[in-house]
Amino acid sequence: MTLVACIGGGQLGRMLGLAGLPLGLRFRFLDPSPDACAGEVGELVVGEYDDVDALVRLADGADVVTYEFENVPVEAALGVGAVPGSRALEQGQDRLREKELFRSLGIPTARFGTLAEAGLPALVKSRRLGYDGKGQRRLDVAGAVDDGEIAEELVAFDRELSIVGVRGGNGETRFWPVGENVHRDGILRVTRSPAVDAPQAEAEAICTALLDALDYVGVLAVELFEVGGRLLANELAPRVHNTAHWTIDGAETSQFENHLRAIVGLPIGATGARAPCAMVNLIGAAPPLEELLALPGSRVHLYGKAPRAGRKVGHVTLLDPVEGTVERLTALADEASGAA
Amino acid sequence: MTLVACIGGGQLGRMLGLAGLPLGLRFRFLDPSPDACAGEVGELVVGEYDDVDALVRLADGADVVTYEFENVPVEAALGVGAVPGSRALEQGQDRLREKELFRSLGIPTARFGTLAEAGLPALVKSRRLGYDGKGQRRLDVAGAVDDGEIAEELVAFDRELSIVGVRGGNGETRFWPVGENVHRDGILRVTRSPAVDAPQAEAEAICTALLDALDYVGVLAVELFEVGGRLLANELAPRVHNTAHWTIDGAETSQFENHLRAIVGLPIGATGARAPCAMVNLIGAAPPLEELLALPGSRVHLYGKAPRAGRKVGHVTLLDPVEGTVERLTALADEASGAA
Repeated sequence: MTLVACIGGGQLGRMLGLAGLPLGLRFRFLDPSPDACAGEVGELVVGEYDDVDALVRLADGADVVTYEFENVPVEAALGVGAVPGSRALEQGQDRLREKELFRSLGIPTARFGTLAEAGLPALVKSRRLGYDGKGQRRLDVAGAVDDGEIAEELVAFDRELSIVGVRGGNGETRFWPVGENVHRDGILRVTRSPAVDAPQAEAEAICTALLDALDYVGVLAVELFEVGGRLLANELAPRVHNTAHWTIDGAETSQFENHLRAIVGLPIGATGARAPCAMVNLIGAAPPLEELLALPGSRVHLYGKAPRAGRKVGHVTLLDPVEGTVERLTALADEASGAA
Repeated sequence: MTLVACIGGGQLGRMLGLAGLPLGLRFRFLDPSPDACAGEVGELVVGEYDDVDALVRLADGADVVTYEFENVPVEAALGVGAVPGSRALEQGQDRLREKELFRSLGIPTARFGTLAEAGLPALVKSRRLGYDGKGQRRLDVAGAVDDGEIAEELVAFDRELSIVGVRGGNGETRFWPVGENVHRDGILRVTRSPAVDAPQAEAEAICTALLDALDYVGVLAVELFEVGGRLLANELAPRVHNTAHWTIDGAETSQFENHLRAIVGLPIGATGARAPCAMVNLIGAAPPLEELLALPGSRVHLYGKAPRAGRKVGHVTLLDPVEGTVERLTALADEASGAA
């Protein structure tokens, strides 16, 4: 029986477990919270991510160690030989190194660096530990930019897209259809996939360059801006990604299953869409379950997390969404979110 | 958080758990084995099915109690108020009462009763506790039939079919497409669904009569013989059923999810096929995982059970099966099975 250990026991770990149990895999998670929601699909080691004893317990007897978020301490990941490798983690944790990696591979980005390099107006972001729009501010006139910050050109993009791909242990790569994403307050709200008129080949070329350069094994996500028909890479995430949650219900093989297949050395599966999908995040609190289930084509995924403002507590995927259903779902989600 | 308790912690319980966790349900299982495979998706109470203390622990704080096999002692099910109700269980446990129920509802069956009523050749079956072909013998000439046995006309059927339906708490019913089944040594090997030229309406009428007569809530399966264009009801199973395992990957809502939705009072979901499917059981031992995953359209479900001759250890569903793939899969399954 193959044991997969995962640094982090949140909803991504939980969905990895749900995808992996049918393959006969078993799971162990490390999380600081004894209520971590992945604990329902595997053993839970409660400890901080840099607690060496806890990391040893996590990895003890495991066939492979992976992680579900990119802010794992690199030393911790290195110490347990986590897959995808620590190189992807280092790049993903530092916005400056990430952007330099894009540049070194010839992948277009918004201008970045110092404020002079970025131009005005700019977004100033902390280089490390930023997620869901935290640690960002906008500068319209010249101002101080800290050493720990990076300035980025504020791009008037036409839309936000993402490409999620997987690379197997044998170097084989596959890509899910590009998703079109809508964020609010820096948090993903809606993904539609396949995106209409998506620049699939161009997005795959960007993702391929990264997967190969990092000698990557597992699932990698790249967030993109589409500007006047061009793609700019915004950031990468060396893990399963919210913009591909629709793949559980809507793709031939989900991102969760393929991440696991890649890291345990199994052949990766087909990534085609079984149906057009729209995925809506449930933020703060979930609407009444019966209302979600009553929506045509809905597939409900609750994470077993207590409600809290700004917290992702679930998502709903609509298969073959019919006219008006996405709007009804987002209205339900907003209403519940506001009540949280 | 809704807690579902389940008498039995085998693969059916495990698949109920996998389907219910994304709905925010939690699970507790009662099973005599500390290794029961459903224990990976919920709490496990180790005890016999008629152990009153264990049943009390199972039901303590549970919102609903269900069961995953029909040989649960009726008193045990009654004591914890299990759903579907004990009436379905009583009928399902006794082949004679089951057949009499069919007759009382005008549902055609093979002739049954005494050997004189059944005619020769006959199948003589124990009335109780028979499954997977156990407790059956064929009589070609007159012989003794015990009080605890029932004689049934040996039917030269054209094919074996099954209809699986669900009835919600509000009386609403839905049915998955009829499956065509191949058994060997009394154990299900292959289900194809939707069956070619299936008598869907006739099968649904049979299932509806049973669901309504039993005032049933949850999933009910009826095994059928097709003989010269007519359907004969063979047996019912008041639970999720092996011949509808394909619904996990191939239907809009799986039998596992709909059983849960029904018993916890949620609206039941659409039951249409997303794709034609073939499901092959893995018996005794599973073939190498990489070979199963390499089959086009395959979705692999291993149950986390140790290999043992005659034991169901997993199943594989082929979506949109391409020419020859079912044969390759059954050959792989047979090879592994023979080695167990």
